[in-house]
Amino acid sequence: MTTHTNRRLVLAARPQGQVKPQDFRMEEVTVPAIGEGQLLVRNRYLSLDPYMRGAMNDRKSYRQAQPLNETMVGGTVGEVVESRHPKFAVGDVVVGGFGWQLYGVSDGAGLRKVDTRQVPMQAFLGVAGMPGVTAWVGLNRIIQPKAGETVVVSAASGAVGSVVGQLAKAAGCRVVGIAGGATKCEAVVKEYGFDACVDYKAGRLMADLAAATPNGIDGYFENVGGDILDAVLSRMNAFGRIAVCGLIAGYNDEPIPVNRFFQVLVSRLKIQGFIVSEFPDAWPPALEELARGVAQGRLKYHETIAKGLDAAPEAFIGLLRGQNFGKQLVELS
Amino acid sequence: MTTHTNRRLVLAARPQGQVKPQDFRMEEVTVPAIGEGQLLVRNRYLSLDPYMRGAMNDRKSYRQAQPLNETMVGGTVGEVVESRHPKFAVGDVVVGGFGWQLYGVSDGAGLRKVDTRQVPMQAFLGVAGMPGVTAWVGLNRIIQPKAGETVVVSAASGAVGSVVGQLAKAAGCRVVGIAGGATKCEAVVKEYGFDACVDYKAGRLMADLAAATPNGIDGYFENVGGDILDAVLSRMNAFGRIAVCGLIAGYNDEPIPVNRFFQVLVSRLKIQGFIVSEFPDAWPPALEELARGVAQGRLKYHETIAKGLDAAPEAFIGLLRGQNFGKQLVELS
Repeated sequence: MTTHTNRRLVLAARPQGQVKPQDFRMEEVTVPAIGEGQLLVRNRYLSLDPYMRGAMNDRKSYRQAQPLNETMVGGTVGEVVESRHPKFAVGDVVVGGFGWQLYGVSDGAGLRKVDTRQVPMQAFLGVAGMPGVTAWVGLNRIIQPKAGETVVVSAASGAVGSVVGQLAKAAGCRVVGIAGGATKCEAVVKEYGFDACVDYKAGRLMADLAAATPNGIDGYFENVGGDILDAVLSRMNAFGRIAVCGLIAGYNDEPIPVNRFFQVLVSRLKIQGFIVSEFPDAWPPALEELARGVAQGRLKYHETIAKGLDAAPEAFIGLLRGQNFGKQLVELS
Repeated sequence: MTTHTNRRLVLAARPQGQVKPQDFRMEEVTVPAIGEGQLLVRNRYLSLDPYMRGAMNDRKSYRQAQPLNETMVGGTVGEVVESRHPKFAVGDVVVGGFGWQLYGVSDGAGLRKVDTRQVPMQAFLGVAGMPGVTAWVGLNRIIQPKAGETVVVSAASGAVGSVVGQLAKAAGCRVVGIAGGATKCEAVVKEYGFDACVDYKAGRLMADLAAATPNGIDGYFENVGGDILDAVLSRMNAFGRIAVCGLIAGYNDEPIPVNRFFQVLVSRLKIQGFIVSEFPDAWPPALEELARGVAQGRLKYHETIAKGLDAAPEAFIGLLRGQNFGKQLVELS
């Protein structure tokens, strides 16, 4: 057996407010020999996702707090390089949750073999993976749009939002994105096919949103929170549905007051927070539909790829600031 | 035919902030003779309800704005005093929506005959009427509590809240009320049988609510909004449900920011605003269950009865300030 040196990033300190590079620490360790029934994976791509920010806090959240001095959690895709497991062979490509490191040892639990003949490996971390399924669940299980309704998506150019919009458009809805900056907005309309996109950085959020939603809003996929949520609430139609997937504005422990909560009563809204792992029955049909969409070229996606594990902290901080475009990945060369 | 003089209160001006007595105007008119297929009702009790405050505003709400110079909307119960309608006889007791006036003419649409042999007439405006059905719908259709769960109710001593608590208790829940003042809290526990009641005027809302909900909160029936909603949000368990029935704090056009909206995501909450008229299929089973509970003495209720139509404006203002205890009625003698 070859001896492999693993490199991994652990959580060195819980962030005080904004995340800093010093909150992480690189470690090098030798990969132990695998035992019977185990396999060794060389991770090729690491997924960076907003939920990681919540996990870094040591407080009640929807997931376990990320332990200090342990490898940062995260989704990965990579190749099996050693196997003593009957169901995995060297060369298999597997999606797993090995975290911010080059290698992972597994007994196969939670690993998913993927077919990379028509879908690139890293897409299984984005459009054909957890972010895509998140979009699918929020739209199909919570918003449940009907043809002709108006669906609004915040963080519309992101890995989740761009899929929400494309799926809603395919369902016959008018689809309006909200994104930060003219470049992202242009991509939302021209590449992802949304009917309109509101640039929240342009300073006319309420007026622009009203112009883009002449018939009001029936469904809202919430990735952001704060002022954007308030603006959307003011445009919600009776019996509107809001799927709350993320609230980036709140991850730094700042309060994010909602001023127009009264609309929940006025428009008899349904609001539901969710995390995709709690919809296990949705994964198989969602993954199948999403991978097929990618293979057939119908589902568009973008990636921002940071090079090398050392670049992960800065890439993560950029993600939290909205500096990425599309799915934020780290290539673990 | 006898000639009857009707007295009615119309909306004279839309309230600027707090409602004032001068926002209403008394008018006297002669009741016209009824036509074929019509009946004349002498209203005996008028129901005063928080929704009326919303109707007084001229802005998007869940109901039509109350027109200026028209009789104020409202639920009534009274006796048929003249009838040229085959299904109604003089002496029948009918629940209707004749508004703030002594007499009402109807063709029978929307009128409901009630049996007052075991349930007093005015209870059909409260526990066995719209407020009771509101409690029933919010609890059974939105919160859907399971035995052993903790259900919290704000405005717990009110016409709606007191029914919510009694129904939830009968469903095997731990039931905690929130009310203003020691007197109301005592009644909530001793008369309505809640397990505990938090006095929000005592200045220890968060601590007292935490002590009263050691296992967190699974269901919340929201009648109030504001700080109380924030306190409850901080105690909600995963997959908690919130039925938003009223938000009194917001009716005067003041913003009511919600600071802990982040809990919607953290605890994957479902929040739903509703108005009871939009659940028509719930009314028959709810009314039957509620009237039976009253007749059998299982469902307790209180009334605050203002005497005479002239007293209605002050009674309504008192209701908005929480000065009533139980269902606020006006006896139209």
